[in-house]
Amino acid sequence: MLGIDPGLTRCGYGCIEASGSSSAPGRAISLGVLRTPAASPLPQRLAELRDELAALIAELRPDVVAVEQVFFQVNVRTAMSVGQASGLALAEAAAAGCEVVQYTPNQVKQSVAGWGAAGKEQVQRMVQVRLGLSSPPRPADAADAAALALCHLAMAPMRRSVAAATGARR
Amino acid sequence: MLGIDPGLTRCGYGCIEASGSSSAPGRAISLGVLRTPAASPLPQRLAELRDELAALIAELRPDVVAVEQVFFQVNVRTAMSVGQASGLALAEAAAAGCEVVQYTPNQVKQSVAGWGAAGKEQVQRMVQVRLGLSSPPRPADAADAAALALCHLAMAPMRRSVAAATGARR
Repeated sequence: MLGIDPGLTRCGYGCIEASGSSSAPGRAISLGVLRTPAASPLPQRLAELRDELAALIAELRPDVVAVEQVFFQVNVRTAMSVGQASGLALAEAAAAGCEVVQYTPNQVKQSVAGWGAAGKEQVQRMVQVRLGLSSPPRPADAADAAALALCHLAMAPMRRSVAAATGARR
Repeated sequence: MLGIDPGLTRCGYGCIEASGSSSAPGRAISLGVLRTPAASPLPQRLAELRDELAALIAELRPDVVAVEQVFFQVNVRTAMSVGQASGLALAEAAAAGCEVVQYTPNQVKQSVAGWGAAGKEQVQRMVQVRLGLSSPPRPADAADAAALALCHLAMAPMRRSVAAATGARR
């Protein structure tokens, strides 16, 4: 599964797979950051990000793509470009036939660090532990994206049982 | 030139060309609204809108695409989906090689209706007059998109002279 922390200047991604181990439940396949040049015009940056996201999804072929659900209240100055980047990520993932899920930053922190108000460093450390890495993933955007994928790894069994129960009640 | 009023439920578009007449400076080529089903999941709706925008741009082949610049303050509930839709429009237009410009709602109203706080109906009436249409374009989203294109038609000569002056000073 692939986590995407949308952004125009830095768009984090973290592709992991389940390891079967309870101490380190995930294995990192590819972690990194897509960047677009701040000096380029906005439409070109968005077109470039779209192409890079499409290429990433085509290369990694994830079954599920987890995109961070962004809210406006956080930072009005960057909120628009984050919203635009998230739109591209959601559209590319759906167009590629992936299951697409969204988690809020609090859900991710709660799931990965056990606490919805956990800081960036705590999230990075927990991602390191859960993926069995020798050092915390950097930059923070790559760690956040990996945390999204780990959050889905933890939540997926519950989502499946809820879906089954809902289906059974129909 | 093609105006796009981004939105997920209704994305207005208005393609016009210069007529050479001063009373009705534009001629309507295609006005309408792209819709995505409100019952579908967000990622599917965005993927669908992306495909429809790409098909529209490929069909109409505009030289310039004018996209409404959206702000968060207006309506927080719909702002995220409008931001996501605008990201798709900007990316598709840039990827198709079009010149991409953005105007704020106030710039459009100022340019088309002569007043930055003009109402929807005034904008619709002025779009009707400036395109020489027998009735006001409906729905309002198509009229807003046509107003964006008309705004660019009015602003383009000034933009060109500013660009030339900036270039000359280098």
